[in-house]
Amino acid sequence: MRAEIIAVGSELLTPYKIDTNSLYLTEKLMEVGIKVAYKTVVGDNREDLYKAIKDASRRVPIIILTGGLGPTEDDITREVVANFLKKELILKEEILEKIKRHFEVRGIKMPEINIRQAFVIEGALVMENNVGTAPGLWIDEEKIKIALLPGPPKELKPMVENVLIKELQKYGSYHYFSRTMRIVGLTESETEEKIEDIISGLKNPWINILAIPGQIEINILARGKNSVAEAEDRVNEVFEKIAERLKEHIFTYGKEKLEEVVGKLLRERGKTLSIAESCTGGYLAHRITDIPGSSEYFERGVVTYSNEAKIEILGVNKETIENHGAVSKETALEMVTGIKKISGTDYAIAITGIAGPSGGTKEKPVGTVYIALSTPEETSAFRYRFIGDREKIKWQSTQQALYLLWKSLKNG
Amino acid sequence: MRAEIIAVGSELLTPYKIDTNSLYLTEKLMEVGIKVAYKTVVGDNREDLYKAIKDASRRVPIIILTGGLGPTEDDITREVVANFLKKELILKEEILEKIKRHFEVRGIKMPEINIRQAFVIEGALVMENNVGTAPGLWIDEEKIKIALLPGPPKELKPMVENVLIKELQKYGSYHYFSRTMRIVGLTESETEEKIEDIISGLKNPWINILAIPGQIEINILARGKNSVAEAEDRVNEVFEKIAERLKEHIFTYGKEKLEEVVGKLLRERGKTLSIAESCTGGYLAHRITDIPGSSEYFERGVVTYSNEAKIEILGVNKETIENHGAVSKETALEMVTGIKKISGTDYAIAITGIAGPSGGTKEKPVGTVYIALSTPEETSAFRYRFIGDREKIKWQSTQQALYLLWKSLKNG
Repeated sequence: MRAEIIAVGSELLTPYKIDTNSLYLTEKLMEVGIKVAYKTVVGDNREDLYKAIKDASRRVPIIILTGGLGPTEDDITREVVANFLKKELILKEEILEKIKRHFEVRGIKMPEINIRQAFVIEGALVMENNVGTAPGLWIDEEKIKIALLPGPPKELKPMVENVLIKELQKYGSYHYFSRTMRIVGLTESETEEKIEDIISGLKNPWINILAIPGQIEINILARGKNSVAEAEDRVNEVFEKIAERLKEHIFTYGKEKLEEVVGKLLRERGKTLSIAESCTGGYLAHRITDIPGSSEYFERGVVTYSNEAKIEILGVNKETIENHGAVSKETALEMVTGIKKISGTDYAIAITGIAGPSGGTKEKPVGTVYIALSTPEETSAFRYRFIGDREKIKWQSTQQALYLLWKSLKNG
Repeated sequence: MRAEIIAVGSELLTPYKIDTNSLYLTEKLMEVGIKVAYKTVVGDNREDLYKAIKDASRRVPIIILTGGLGPTEDDITREVVANFLKKELILKEEILEKIKRHFEVRGIKMPEINIRQAFVIEGALVMENNVGTAPGLWIDEEKIKIALLPGPPKELKPMVENVLIKELQKYGSYHYFSRTMRIVGLTESETEEKIEDIISGLKNPWINILAIPGQIEINILARGKNSVAEAEDRVNEVFEKIAERLKEHIFTYGKEKLEEVVGKLLRERGKTLSIAESCTGGYLAHRITDIPGSSEYFERGVVTYSNEAKIEILGVNKETIENHGAVSKETALEMVTGIKKISGTDYAIAITGIAGPSGGTKEKPVGTVYIALSTPEETSAFRYRFIGDREKIKWQSTQQALYLLWKSLKNG
């Protein structure tokens, strides 16, 4: 069986907000073998919503509605669905009590309008809301199945996982399986070239490549008619081939970030890290310290934006900057040696470059970045040329620095 | 007249990708007075797309389709629309020539399959594509108006701005106007409380509040029946009232980031800044240096994650840390004095706290953060308690630090 997701809310029809619940719902539906065939967004308007539900009911047998279950007059989903199904709305005392208690424990009397949330479509299964006030509803008729879910993700997710998914499981016609890998150190076209002959023309499994500069994510998704094992086999066959081709560059078979993987390796080996940044302005230290427990391996960082800071904190020679420039291999090497010396860490990274939009020259155009890595064995620096705006150049510089560190940790 | 946006593409029905073209299109349609009533996503499937177009045509008089104009067999939008309108697809020699040239200048022979992109629905206005190969189409029938646009934003946008918007202008029934403000230093509920009596029950203008911890954006949008001026008046009346109430907290009447506004003030006043971070791990320096030209006012930053780093680089007293802890008002004050001294800047900020998830105590739970600000006039430190995960605590700490600096610059 296939489904349509309908997000209800006028704010989702403005230039300001987008429906993202449908991504989560798609994933959950897929897990029980239900394919999303349509996604619709409609405003808080009775006539429009009625038409959306009617059209959806002609297209698919399962409709998942999100939003419009609040207590105000604009919250019309319950009424419109009841109207569409020609069913009554019935006040449920036990829900009303629960809503009242929700306010009581917060020391507030329940506002009158919240009574609306205690009305239930006759025959519907009630999905309890333990976070907010609006319960969800599940209507399972022979011809049409409709779920009503609240809009806020933290209210919607528990209902899906605790109740809805079990109901939907009965109607999954396929079995899905997917695997993921993330790659660093290759461009999108380099990646595609390496695996073109494997993935070309594939329909099941289905390959999805998500590329941002400095990182590629490959998702492999397959459908099995009779079992998950069938889908799994299809995925694995292609997955192994791709993994073999790209193995030098795969840093995770999950959704981990590169800084997470690097952090794990540093911790496992009991090694420490320090960082000296110029053009990335603290971004690398920020990424490293986003990982819980990073204080175990990250000792310190400096953002030596001015030449004086490079000289005073890191002991870079004034002559090195004068002769080679602040953006040079020589300066990067002195920066990395300096930060390693003052911090006493096992590993150190230094980054200096031109993030733009101004400051570029013919010899060193915007995007020119030197990255130096010092390991317990050796110290070296590399020149790169990154493309994009200031933010993209900063991001790619930190990603490349993490890549160098990851390679060294992995092979060391 | 109202419109429906239909995004075509099976990848938009996976958990990995979302349609964002519709946000841009909604904004453009609004500018010419056309309201988006529905948004639909459908896969690369002839039958499904046919139904989506048919249902849309019964709901609204204008349909904007994006995607499915590529050269492969999966690109079905042209054919399905032609089929729906019972019209022929005609090969246009001049388009074919243009596509051939597109490949020629890149030194490639046009692949055979690209011929499909030179087929045009009879009677359609062709919207040239100067970026890619697929032209857009605009069909203006009495009963239904349909636009076919390519999926990639950089191909779609010029077509909309150069051609489509002029065609749509004829059918706009309303005039829209909107204004924005961004607020710092108030929570969402504090903001709502302050302006509740102004905004309660408003329908035109319409208020949209986008809140993230540490920042609130208020969008005010109005519709005028006869002129933009009418809409503008409606917006301004409410806008002025809200601005009066919140004036102490409004840092921009546009879409600027707080670090941008702070950077502008530092530059205008010829003042410099240095930063010492512990729990934010470089995030504040990263935000400051994301702004082009920040090297004019940002001198240096340090990420003194370990106690040794705080003592060695910033000259924090060992006893201060021993007696009061690394997360304390006293340490924050010594950090800010230290960074200001070694950098010689006019302003300095220091942040030390517990970003979690571990490291909290009863007296100093996770989310406890001390921020010290040193201005040319005075040095002071404040204690905060932020709620959320590690990333949210880091974000709110940097936002609060920027808020303190902004207040001081604004009033100084």
